[in-house]
Amino acid sequence: MTKPQGLLIVYTGDGKGKTTAALGMVLRAWGRGMRVCVLQFLKDERGRWGEVLAAEKLGIAWHTLGTGFVWEPDQDAEARVRSQEAWRLAQAAIESGDYDLVVLDEFTYPLRFGWVDINEVLTWLAHERPSGVHVVITGRQAPDALIDQADLVTEMRNIKHPFDAGLAGQKGIEY
Amino acid sequence: MTKPQGLLIVYTGDGKGKTTAALGMVLRAWGRGMRVCVLQFLKDERGRWGEVLAAEKLGIAWHTLGTGFVWEPDQDAEARVRSQEAWRLAQAAIESGDYDLVVLDEFTYPLRFGWVDINEVLTWLAHERPSGVHVVITGRQAPDALIDQADLVTEMRNIKHPFDAGLAGQKGIEY
Repeated sequence: MTKPQGLLIVYTGDGKGKTTAALGMVLRAWGRGMRVCVLQFLKDERGRWGEVLAAEKLGIAWHTLGTGFVWEPDQDAEARVRSQEAWRLAQAAIESGDYDLVVLDEFTYPLRFGWVDINEVLTWLAHERPSGVHVVITGRQAPDALIDQADLVTEMRNIKHPFDAGLAGQKGIEY
Repeated sequence: MTKPQGLLIVYTGDGKGKTTAALGMVLRAWGRGMRVCVLQFLKDERGRWGEVLAAEKLGIAWHTLGTGFVWEPDQDAEARVRSQEAWRLAQAAIESGDYDLVVLDEFTYPLRFGWVDINEVLTWLAHERPSGVHVVITGRQAPDALIDQADLVTEMRNIKHPFDAGLAGQKGIEY
């Protein structure tokens, strides 16, 4: 029996639940005994999130790669270098044979801003990714070319957000 | 310090990722040491999913309550009785003091079909739910009244689904 082809899954849109859904996949895969790696391209200032704590407890590989991407153009040079380093780490994880599922959390941003070349990424995922490795990419504004190549794409739409009502994000729920 | 008010969170829409996002919240909350209960209103024929296996390993309370809801009108009477039993179990879990986060997975269906009275549910959640207990409700077609009352609502929109391309759901990824 040949190994089923790994899926390329994208969670995008401006609503809550993209990273959260990726975490749910992590939990489901872990429950099945699959080997999971999470690469986080965007570093949050709140430090160790609930998910990082959970991953540690579960023995899931978790790497925070981002610098806390800054959106201003004058940060472009550093963002570019760091994004490309992070993408090389992602490639290494995907082709290592150590993982069945690799999550590239918030990876749409470096693609959208051109810090990592999207054509290079898509060509590599199509031709160099070992068969059977599932890849999940999250983040707003997934580029069209990524959506075209993906097997499963869900857009999370914000219908109502607690920050709209002035409620602060709550520990263990939102982060 | 007063305990922060528990949030009412809804994941709806026809795209993939609703239950998956709820699972991600479960993992995040568990990572923070919160006490979690999942009540599954819709039973799947595939039996023990990755998430059920994971919950067992993590010591998370997990109850499958549904009968595999049937959509035909002639099943209405049984669906109504079972839905109301399930809702009473949900109430018991929420008010028990044993949990910080209670997930009502696929609970929109009994609400949408009127098997459980939505006004009764919303009134109870607003007035009888202990402060500090977060409730997550998933499922398609969340009723407007539920959306109105919720603190956070995300709609998952299906942009592309692997079944569209004839790929079967894969163990550990989709279930």
